Amino acid sequence: MADAKVRIGIVGATGYAGVELVRIVSANPGMSLERITSTREAGTRIDALYPGLIGTCDLTLVAPDADDLGESCDLVFLAVPHTASLAITPELVSRGVAVVDLSADFRLSDPEVYRRWYDTPHTAPELLSQAVYGIPELNRDQVVDLGTRPRDLPRIVANPGCYPTAATFAVAPLLRRDGMVDLSCPVIVDAASGVSGAGRGATARTHFCSADESYQAYGVGRHRHLPEIVQNMTRLAQRQVSVVFTPHLAPMKRGILATVYVTLSHDLEAGELRAAFEQDYGRERFVHLLPEGVQPATGSVAGTENVQIGVARAHGTRVAVITCAIDNLVRGAAGQAVQNANLLCGLNEFSGLDTPMPIV
Amino acid sequence: MADAKVRIGIVGATGYAGVELVRIVSANPGMSLERITSTREAGTRIDALYPGLIGTCDLTLVAPDADDLGESCDLVFLAVPHTASLAITPELVSRGVAVVDLSADFRLSDPEVYRRWYDTPHTAPELLSQAVYGIPELNRDQVVDLGTRPRDLPRIVANPGCYPTAATFAVAPLLRRDGMVDLSCPVIVDAASGVSGAGRGATARTHFCSADESYQAYGVGRHRHLPEIVQNMTRLAQRQVSVVFTPHLAPMKRGILATVYVTLSHDLEAGELRAAFEQDYGRERFVHLLPEGVQPATGSVAGTENVQIGVARAHGTRVAVITCAIDNLVRGAAGQAVQNANLLCGLNEFSGLDTPMPIV
Amino acid sequence: MADAKVRIGIVGATGYAGVELVRIVSANPGMSLERITSTREAGTRIDALYPGLIGTCDLTLVAPDADDLGESCDLVFLAVPHTASLAITPELVSRGVAVVDLSADFRLSDPEVYRRWYDTPHTAPELLSQAVYGIPELNRDQVVDLGTRPRDLPRIVANPGCYPTAATFAVAPLLRRDGMVDLSCPVIVDAASGVSGAGRGATARTHFCSADESYQAYGVGRHRHLPEIVQNMTRLAQRQVSVVFTPHLAPMKRGILATVYVTLSHDLEAGELRAAFEQDYGRERFVHLLPEGVQPATGSVAGTENVQIGVARAHGTRVAVITCAIDNLVRGAAGQAVQNANLLCGLNEFSGLDTPMPIV
Amino acid sequence: MADAKVRIGIVGATGYAGVELVRIVSANPGMSLERITSTREAGTRIDALYPGLIGTCDLTLVAPDADDLGESCDLVFLAVPHTASLAITPELVSRGVAVVDLSADFRLSDPEVYRRWYDTPHTAPELLSQAVYGIPELNRDQVVDLGTRPRDLPRIVANPGCYPTAATFAVAPLLRRDGMVDLSCPVIVDAASGVSGAGRGATARTHFCSADESYQAYGVGRHRHLPEIVQNMTRLAQRQVSVVFTPHLAPMKRGILATVYVTLSHDLEAGELRAAFEQDYGRERFVHLLPEGVQPATGSVAGTENVQIGVARAHGTRVAVITCAIDNLVRGAAGQAVQNANLLCGLNEFSGLDTPMPIV
Repeated sequence: MADAKVRIGIVGATGYAGVELVRIVSANPGMSLERITSTREAGTRIDALYPGLIGTCDLTLVAPDADDLGESCDLVFLAVPHTASLAITPELVSRGVAVVDLSADFRLSDPEVYRRWYDTPHTAPELLSQAVYGIPELNRDQVVDLGTRPRDLPRIVANPGCYPTAATFAVAPLLRRDGMVDLSCPVIVDAASGVSGAGRGATARTHFCSADESYQAYGVGRHRHLPEIVQNMTRLAQRQVSVVFTPHLAPMKRGILATVYVTLSHDLEAGELRAAFEQDYGRERFVHLLPEGVQPATGSVAGTENVQIGVARAHGTRVAVITCAIDNLVRGAAGQAVQNANLLCGLNEFSGLDTPMPIV
Repeated sequence: MADAKVRIGIVGATGYAGVELVRIVSANPGMSLERITSTREAGTRIDALYPGLIGTCDLTLVAPDADDLGESCDLVFLAVPHTASLAITPELVSRGVAVVDLSADFRLSDPEVYRRWYDTPHTAPELLSQAVYGIPELNRDQVVDLGTRPRDLPRIVANPGCYPTAATFAVAPLLRRDGMVDLSCPVIVDAASGVSGAGRGATARTHFCSADESYQAYGVGRHRHLPEIVQNMTRLAQRQVSVVFTPHLAPMKRGILATVYVTLSHDLEAGELRAAFEQDYGRERFVHLLPEGVQPATGSVAGTENVQIGVARAHGTRVAVITCAIDNLVRGAAGQAVQNANLLCGLNEFSGLDTPMPIV
Repeated sequence: MADAKVRIGIVGATGYAGVELVRIVSANPGMSLERITSTREAGTRIDALYPGLIGTCDLTLVAPDADDLGESCDLVFLAVPHTASLAITPELVSRGVAVVDLSADFRLSDPEVYRRWYDTPHTAPELLSQAVYGIPELNRDQVVDLGTRPRDLPRIVANPGCYPTAATFAVAPLLRRDGMVDLSCPVIVDAASGVSGAGRGATARTHFCSADESYQAYGVGRHRHLPEIVQNMTRLAQRQVSVVFTPHLAPMKRGILATVYVTLSHDLEAGELRAAFEQDYGRERFVHLLPEGVQPATGSVAGTENVQIGVARAHGTRVAVITCAIDNLVRGAAGQAVQNANLLCGLNEFSGLDTPMPIV
Repeated sequence: MADAKVRIGIVGATGYAGVELVRIVSANPGMSLERITSTREAGTRIDALYPGLIGTCDLTLVAPDADDLGESCDLVFLAVPHTASLAITPELVSRGVAVVDLSADFRLSDPEVYRRWYDTPHTAPELLSQAVYGIPELNRDQVVDLGTRPRDLPRIVANPGCYPTAATFAVAPLLRRDGMVDLSCPVIVDAASGVSGAGRGATARTHFCSADESYQAYGVGRHRHLPEIVQNMTRLAQRQVSVVFTPHLAPMKRGILATVYVTLSHDLEAGELRAAFEQDYGRERFVHLLPEGVQPATGSVAGTENVQIGVARAHGTRVAVITCAIDNLVRGAAGQAVQNANLLCGLNEFSGLDTPMPIV
């Protein structure tokens, strides 16, 4: 029946991306949440773990089971660590279930690059080659097309990483335009993330007394999002792009700000740069170029699917400085996953994602 | 026409309660936002002041004008300081506009008490006597009845203060039950608020470097919410209640936690206390009693209309300790105002208020 | 030799109280830090664990060993969980080492009360009876006297808990004065602590994303500091005092604010109350009564041994509201321990404790 | 007399740098604080404005007066906005008072550059040419020499800006070494500051609810610290250096982290880079190179004069990524000012600056 809701499962519902999926799917009138799973916390009600869900979702976590998911769900979100998606995706695909994978397992098109950065072989290269990496505003059609495939073919969306999402939105209009960027210089991506980006695990680094009132870089020059950023930029530029990426941990719960330094081929005016962004993003509901001289703040996109972008030129150089703010758990994970799922399932792309969030 | 949306105006839209009203009204399918006013910032787009509203509301602020509001709005929210509501309410009422007043001007039923605590006479005592103080879960019928009045009679909801809302929810089930509470002892309300409670004004106290990483009491024994708390508790108990109220400023943006100490008349079990709360609140969509031993956190209700309550007995005494968490700007201001407006206008009570908020 | 420094050991140097001891002892010209121990992290340099110590202390952690401590130290601080002190104290005492115990093991004078609240028998009641509970400003002489005992007698200071310290300073001047307080009503201690009070352990509750931007009560009516608070107040009043104690977790790293509600026997003026505080604390270097109408903020005592106190009367009741701010890790643990040790060892009481801390 | 303390005045003692000067000078055994001034808050005790100073400094603010300062002080710190120092410095110098100026007025050696960036002419170019820009670890001798000048010659230290200090420490060892850095590429300085960097002024941007839980860039490509950074780097390299500088505001009170991207001339190993830092900073008490793979956190230097540095190479490029953490108010302002003053006055360079700060 045309009106039937898409039946949804969330594997790994207790992590931060998982619980945001629970929230957003619950608010999506085109979806019905059928299963939420957790290997470790099966048997617990999700709203006992997260009292913020009281009144929104009273489901009980179950252990993940492919047969059960295959029968009860049309689409499953995988909010699990890398390699865990590799294990479960083939089982879901073979049961005709569509998969939106929030892990890194289907993001890197070259299984060898995956092996090198994740220290483990890619065990499903045949599925990898059919998965679609989905940033809707950049390749909406591919995700829609995926949704038209027959159920016995793999329908897998590789949901982008948080840093790559922010970095890619920041430079896509420039890299796409042939000759605008001097690719002999590396693109420098300096980014700050809220602590939720480090996950729900209680560690020395996520302890309030470590993270609060402090700011520091981590994983300098070797963060696993680097090859994904390189892949995205290289695709956009249709030439190899060299990238330097430095993530930082900022004392806040949510949000990513990517400050991206791009060397321009010639001395373009800020207005010319801005025109490229306007042209590419001007009609997008969730992507907003800020007025000249205004820089986006992560707080202004907290909890939303929005992308806010500021464009500036660095005094006396050929460098453009683009800053791009997203919410790491929504646009950087659960929200973009739902946007992809909406496209895949033929729902309104914005369904569940367009509620305004607290302003202060 | 039955489907016509209620046309809304917000006077004082740039304060923190005002901008939350903008957000919630924008998300309310039964309302259309027609006017947003600001004396000081007329001419500015609200989403330039609050970039978090980009994509949600692109209205431009105008100076408040009673004629214009009277023509374009069915209901106006007043999110202005005390005395400012006194000035504008008669003008709106005389034009047949319903008013939900977020200031203190119509909360205290005795104009003499108002005069004493606000150092200014109450200039509209005849309207005051007809205003309805609205906490929907406690006196829903009165607000609904107000909505049935002819347009030429005053329809004014006095929207409760943030601290009084939290404190009142915490004790209503106990005070309502005759003989449960020993009223010879004062009720002690110890409460903490996020910094948004101090308003948008940039002051020494709201400076990040003053408020961050610090916790302190303020207005001890003389905060203006005291008479409102006393009035609410006295109404519920139908006897004079003595109250000690100590507000604190906590280093967070939002939220109020009221920890209320009530001396019981006899040595009731925690279970008996809990039964009273279950009975009164068990069917309310937005009010949640937490399981025994669990205490509410302000973070779990951030951005929502929810009220979460924990009930405990203090070891070796006749004191019950009730903790009650709300969001100060939603349940403590804009959200409860919209809930009251929904009731007044015959809309679904929960319209615009039931979207789940970010969980992490 | 008169000038020899007191040789110090710190058992449990990697916890938050332990590392603050390292810092304060390092800054104390009368002490030399000889041993820092950690069972779990032996072999690691303390400044690798805590880069804030780079340049201050380059000692390597060793496993605790009574013989080694006995030979190399005159005084040992125990910054370990309860029961661990019970195990090691007799071994140190028998080797002639003075002990300042930051755990709860020697605080409760009645071993039966200890057994009831800590669910384990007190295994050294004979030492317990000789230990001195030390809040220098309240019983300085006892700690000094302890220091004059021969080395073959036990010299143990039970260092107070953080909440009891704040609560006790808040009410001592009132309780000491016969007839000032109506003890038929319980004293209500409502207190907020920074997250460091929950210790260094990485748990769901200390995760930045749980603690940040949230405020909640915990352990309502059953926190283990309750019997210590009762014991202190009962001693001061020389009559049984009934106490209700509610601790809260505030989103900040450090600090405790105790807001204490005391019912007065008669309707004393604020000035009379203040006079009692002035009389008792006016000459103390670290205890400060704030001007009338001013409330202490935890941020103003962060990192210091200072105690700041505000005194107010609650409008229309016989209740006095005393607020008392301390740093939970300094005055509430490591700093008071060093102050006690200074007294015990005949050093300047303030040595290592009087450096001003960052103001903003 | 050899033992006489240096008599100190602080002009502009109520700003954040000023009050940190009060704290540090109070703790400096070689200095005695004689005068603290404030035009706006003359007559107020400093510890009433900043209760954290209770017990440390009970001086009353006076209006600044050159004659009074000239008589009572040997050295005056100017913690005032730019142009205010230009006004008062000549008056102090003519009275034989040494000046350490924390404003920007004497930092830029070219008065024309000053005029361009500060929109006002430099009114004391003859003093400018004699002022010494002082980062002790980089040009200690010049500051010491300044102290040997006769009192009738100008003795002015231009105290560096916070961002320039961090950025300069990060790259000095590389730029000093001829040929190590490829200066055809701009040096990119991406830096985050705590909110105290925005000053004590209560503004929309410093409001807790704006700054908390948010991260954003500001002044992109046009911040006034840019010419100072360029000047420092150009001096070190002895060739013109092109710089891109992007400051960010991080939700914390204090600290600066500069993440600096330098293009190397050839593919140096991380070890070779580290050797340069070890060689230059290895014997400095306050400058610490962290072990390979470890990045400095601002929290680890909070309240201290310390500089912590991490050195890394970016994967697959010729770019070195240096991160440098300082406390913006101590090393970035008041602390470095005192270190300069100590050198100027022949005191122990570290006096007042070597107390360890709270670790958690």
